[in-house]
Amino acid sequence: MAVLGTVAVEVFIPVAALIGIAFAVVQWYVVARVAVISDAGGGAGGKGRGSDVLEEDDEEEYGVDRLAVEARCAEIQQAISVGATSFLLTEYKYLAVFMVAFAAVIFLFLGSARRFSARPEPCAHDPARACRPALANAAFSAVAFLLGALTSVLSGYLGMRVATFANARTALEARRGIDRAFAVAFRSGAAMGFLLASSALLVLYAAVNLFGLYYGDDWGGLYESITGYGLGGSSVALFGRVGGGIYTKAADVGADLVGKVERNIPEDDPRNPAVIADNVGDNVGDIAGMGSDLFGSYAESSCAALFVASISSFGTEHNFAAMMYPLLISAVGLLVCAVTTLVATDATTIECTNEIGPTLKQQILISTVLMTGGVAAVTFLALPARFTLFDFGNDKHVKNWHLFICVSTGLWAGLVIGYVTEYFTSNAYGPVRAVARSCRTGAATNVIFGLAVGYKSVIVPILAIAAAIYAGFRLAAMYGIALAALGMLSTIATGLAIDAYGPISDNAGGIAEMSGMPHSVRERTDALDAAGNTTAAIGKGFAIGSAALVSLALFGAFVSRAGITAVDVLSPRVFVGLLAGAMLPYWFSAMTMQSVGSAALRMVEEVRRQFDAIPGLAEGLATPDYATCVRISTDASIRKMMAPGALVMLSPLVAGTLFGVETLAGLLAGALVSGVQVAISASNSGGAWDNAKKYIEAGVSEEARSLGPKGSEAHKAAVIGDTIGDPLKDTSGPSLNILIKLMAVESLVFAPFFAAHGGIIFNHL
Amino acid sequence: MAVLGTVAVEVFIPVAALIGIAFAVVQWYVVARVAVISDAGGGAGGKGRGSDVLEEDDEEEYGVDRLAVEARCAEIQQAISVGATSFLLTEYKYLAVFMVAFAAVIFLFLGSARRFSARPEPCAHDPARACRPALANAAFSAVAFLLGALTSVLSGYLGMRVATFANARTALEARRGIDRAFAVAFRSGAAMGFLLASSALLVLYAAVNLFGLYYGDDWGGLYESITGYGLGGSSVALFGRVGGGIYTKAADVGADLVGKVERNIPEDDPRNPAVIADNVGDNVGDIAGMGSDLFGSYAESSCAALFVASISSFGTEHNFAAMMYPLLISAVGLLVCAVTTLVATDATTIECTNEIGPTLKQQILISTVLMTGGVAAVTFLALPARFTLFDFGNDKHVKNWHLFICVSTGLWAGLVIGYVTEYFTSNAYGPVRAVARSCRTGAATNVIFGLAVGYKSVIVPILAIAAAIYAGFRLAAMYGIALAALGMLSTIATGLAIDAYGPISDNAGGIAEMSGMPHSVRERTDALDAAGNTTAAIGKGFAIGSAALVSLALFGAFVSRAGITAVDVLSPRVFVGLLAGAMLPYWFSAMTMQSVGSAALRMVEEVRRQFDAIPGLAEGLATPDYATCVRISTDASIRKMMAPGALVMLSPLVAGTLFGVETLAGLLAGALVSGVQVAISASNSGGAWDNAKKYIEAGVSEEARSLGPKGSEAHKAAVIGDTIGDPLKDTSGPSLNILIKLMAVESLVFAPFFAAHGGIIFNHL
Repeated sequence: MAVLGTVAVEVFIPVAALIGIAFAVVQWYVVARVAVISDAGGGAGGKGRGSDVLEEDDEEEYGVDRLAVEARCAEIQQAISVGATSFLLTEYKYLAVFMVAFAAVIFLFLGSARRFSARPEPCAHDPARACRPALANAAFSAVAFLLGALTSVLSGYLGMRVATFANARTALEARRGIDRAFAVAFRSGAAMGFLLASSALLVLYAAVNLFGLYYGDDWGGLYESITGYGLGGSSVALFGRVGGGIYTKAADVGADLVGKVERNIPEDDPRNPAVIADNVGDNVGDIAGMGSDLFGSYAESSCAALFVASISSFGTEHNFAAMMYPLLISAVGLLVCAVTTLVATDATTIECTNEIGPTLKQQILISTVLMTGGVAAVTFLALPARFTLFDFGNDKHVKNWHLFICVSTGLWAGLVIGYVTEYFTSNAYGPVRAVARSCRTGAATNVIFGLAVGYKSVIVPILAIAAAIYAGFRLAAMYGIALAALGMLSTIATGLAIDAYGPISDNAGGIAEMSGMPHSVRERTDALDAAGNTTAAIGKGFAIGSAALVSLALFGAFVSRAGITAVDVLSPRVFVGLLAGAMLPYWFSAMTMQSVGSAALRMVEEVRRQFDAIPGLAEGLATPDYATCVRISTDASIRKMMAPGALVMLSPLVAGTLFGVETLAGLLAGALVSGVQVAISASNSGGAWDNAKKYIEAGVSEEARSLGPKGSEAHKAAVIGDTIGDPLKDTSGPSLNILIKLMAVESLVFAPFFAAHGGIIFNHL
Repeated sequence: MAVLGTVAVEVFIPVAALIGIAFAVVQWYVVARVAVISDAGGGAGGKGRGSDVLEEDDEEEYGVDRLAVEARCAEIQQAISVGATSFLLTEYKYLAVFMVAFAAVIFLFLGSARRFSARPEPCAHDPARACRPALANAAFSAVAFLLGALTSVLSGYLGMRVATFANARTALEARRGIDRAFAVAFRSGAAMGFLLASSALLVLYAAVNLFGLYYGDDWGGLYESITGYGLGGSSVALFGRVGGGIYTKAADVGADLVGKVERNIPEDDPRNPAVIADNVGDNVGDIAGMGSDLFGSYAESSCAALFVASISSFGTEHNFAAMMYPLLISAVGLLVCAVTTLVATDATTIECTNEIGPTLKQQILISTVLMTGGVAAVTFLALPARFTLFDFGNDKHVKNWHLFICVSTGLWAGLVIGYVTEYFTSNAYGPVRAVARSCRTGAATNVIFGLAVGYKSVIVPILAIAAAIYAGFRLAAMYGIALAALGMLSTIATGLAIDAYGPISDNAGGIAEMSGMPHSVRERTDALDAAGNTTAAIGKGFAIGSAALVSLALFGAFVSRAGITAVDVLSPRVFVGLLAGAMLPYWFSAMTMQSVGSAALRMVEEVRRQFDAIPGLAEGLATPDYATCVRISTDASIRKMMAPGALVMLSPLVAGTLFGVETLAGLLAGALVSGVQVAISASNSGGAWDNAKKYIEAGVSEEARSLGPKGSEAHKAAVIGDTIGDPLKDTSGPSLNILIKLMAVESLVFAPFFAAHGGIIFNHL
């Protein structure tokens, strides 16, 4: 029936992944041709062409002492890179301990569910046949967990390397024009996006094939174990996001509070001792954290889809091409994104700053339109015309075009979320301008309006997610939801590209300021950065939307694996779980915001101390002690990521063990529906405040000029809003989508244990 | 089996209610003995005794020109009273139109469910018997709705009258000592609390008996119709809270932004044109709105309990004493609260300011302890030892002591919520002090810490509510939940007393300032007010906690009436409802906050205009135009309460009609679990900011003095936080508990219509 055979699938997926990696390498190579003196990143063939090009251009743009500026650039890039690398290595050292310990927990809990029996088990969905022993599943789950965790670490690390390699280059190119700076920043983002998306696909594909050597025909056991991959990915992502988020915002808030508010020196001024820590933070938080996060979503939605598919009719009939449908979508997505990227890099030229936003926005539209065709092709080539899913014990008959609708709805829901996010966070539209206007009456009205914008921005994305859920659920039960999530994430390479573009531009602005480039260069990087704020918000929107879908799919898989037939809100066990689950995002946000707040206070004290203790610092005659500030951020984030991390990791274990699977199911549903709202509103309030401030600073309209310039009362109010938004949009908000995903995937992995031994307390009450 | 017979119950309930009313009148009489020159409120026998007492005291406290001050006091009280009355009358005019229209909608929708059939229907739970026709139920529901709405209007209006009668008296007594001022404010609060709680009980009791004349043995139909009473109460409460909330905060924020921040004049300074509007706002928002709100909760939980009880074994066996158990609890509650109030008014003397908080806190503890005994007595006297509930088609065997546990858990959960709220919002403890400390680094850290405190304050209340839900649900299904809600509300008279005490003290402070009383008097009213901020937060905690329980009980009743047997999260219809429901509190908050924000902006413009246009205003040589500010607040609140009100009223109708009862059930559950969190965190963040500011102003510790005094940078940051908290704690937050209750009770009332005609869209998808 289906056209694609096993061999074609076996070839197509790895080839697409390798094409993606090659594409990333090419982008990196192009970026590397921009020369940085005494280049630490070691780009290929940089110098010759770089200095060659420079001579063509107008000398004036390069500042008075060109060589000194370039040397300073290289030095700063080096400092940022060293700081980021050292932080990530410290973080990963702690994570290594956690990963090994948690892998042991997985093995012990899952092993104990069947008393460490090494005997073959009757297959869950065909008890006549013998499947692999529970002990093997426990061991393979632990291995898959470690594999996912390692891939996630790799994703974060590679992303950070690409970004710290590109930031100075973007600043240097900004001297030559907005188009060139944009190209470098965007290509670097693309390099990161493709590297991540491709390696995620490749590793998962390899794992499925390697595990398959042992599992053979036991696809149920195979894909149950593979879910550990998603858990590993998201665990690392959680600590990456929280740790990185605390790092970057402690530095950012601390730097702004003393620098901008007290000392009246510009953002990213080299006299500010926290400025290097701030720039390091962009890379470890927004880049590495985001990379791990989206990798986690991708891994989990694939695992959820595979797990559900393994118990469908094509799973039990061992139709490999149909079984690999989720990975095929991701593979096609890579190719579609490559074409989309070429549109921006080779078919578009940016001539003025207000073309940047539309170009980035176009990327989402193009990739979505092309991908719709791609999904159609894969669906009709890989899937049998009709097949059967097992929906909580009931047979559900599905046609292949149903799945096309599931995937496409997810894909287009992503587009809607992206566009709505842009509307509420870009300073080209009403909401941000109203927030900016409210600065006229001070910080309080600014905050009130900003919070309201964030709240309001929740409405449409939630309706879009609800539509995707209804379509997916109705047509193909939990498999449909998992596919909707994969649809939304199928253009992840493009999503990551435009998302990573933001922090790279932000860093470039920092480097331009610190290395003393002329004001005109800073204006260009600011324009790049303003668009980056919006794309960062869009990226967060995608991350949250897909997390909601993924969590629901994982939730469905958990319920199925735990042997629950209904999650009835009218059961007291479920309802108390629902209520407590809805509370967890608040608890988690309280922890992370307080961590940022108290780390920022320490940073403020240190920065003030340096201004007082180092003679000539305020006048720019002495160099501040950047390293101490880097150390404060590092210490704070490592120490403070433990408690929120533990909250997320332990909640499902405690709920499942003490209160049982029904309460746990309620907890997951509650955390999901509540967390999504908190996450979206936090991200968008933060984005709106940030861009309201940028709107006043840029002074592009008469209204904006009447509010500005920098240093005016309205601008000061806008800075306060921006600072409040920092932990909301870069620490709490984006960590929440990991919270909901991670709790769901963890419950799925531990489901057999909870089903066997859970509910200690409620069984007696 | 049970000791109490029908006659005893028929006597006890109205007698307890009348005792409550008499108690309120006595308190009012005592308050009225404080004389106000040219008294507008018309207290009994005021003047003689008042001036008599004055001569006993030290003249110095009375300011230079005693008579002028007192005349000014009377004048301001008059202005506030006139403003509040005129606003409420305007509001009620609009509400009258709405009420009549909505009563018609109820009649038409419910009538159409059975095609306006006037023939007797087979009884729902005993189809062999004939019950009253659907048309009669439709008509009686509409009448009950109007009755509830009118009682709610009355509650709000009476509360406002008491408060505006007491505020000047409190200020005048503050000259004679903190103990006397406290006594006046507290007695006035008690007068309001007892008046409301008693009349609510009396009207409901009368309605049950009057409706019973028609319904006779058809208790199912009787108590179905009575649910309209709860809907009426909460509908008015919604508009009261939202309208009043917008009014008070538009004025408050507007007054503060120009007065405190720009002009550097103190709070409540008579030169500020918005100052009268601000004080009017306290009465229409915090007093009238709160009164309607808690009346709504009380009416709804009683209706939910009665409805569920009517289909229990003692309902079908027509055991009147057992049937009236919910009203008996409220009746005993009135007596318990009267004793509790006497402890504060007659057995306690306040000697210094830091005894105020503990005395108020003690009230909750005493009433809870006494009430536990009262509940035990009622339970064993009124209920048969064992009986049967019908839990979604299953028989549930219940013993009378089970119900004792249900009610007591609710009662004690209320105490826990009260104490936790106090911990997070009183400046005697760590959290508020940490917020105050964070003002050292500016408004941004203040806001970050304040938000975190609000988020954190959610944890314990949610666990307490969850415990009450689990106990209630497990022991007596939805009847248990309704009883837990009634338990929490059984001490409503005391709750309202300490809650109303807050705005009365706040107003008293305003009047003291405006009438030019000496600084020492203002210090006393400030101390009263700081304790009032905390009790206001406690009151909101009670309102939210009881709303959660009430909503769940109503939700259960709705599900039962709509004929749903399970609300399974794994059904796509339910899940999309759950997700969209969790979004509604955000949508609603966005609307209300934006309303406050934009109304405040208009107020700011007007206040600025007056300072510029009226010569000598800033120097205190001219009188500002208070009336225009009052008009701005009135207009804004009337216009802006429509949209959020419509959102709440229409959501269940739209969801039920278009998507059906399952989606509506999901919507209610989602709004409940998400709304509770938003409401608690908003109220407590706001309370914490307000008291952090007061902590700095009062300068009672070395730390506080290092942050202050008024006008310091830290104090300015604290003022910004306080202003941001205003709409959160007094507009959005407290309205949200009405949102969740109202949607539930509305769904319950319309359930037969949705069951018959609902789900137009989803039936085809």
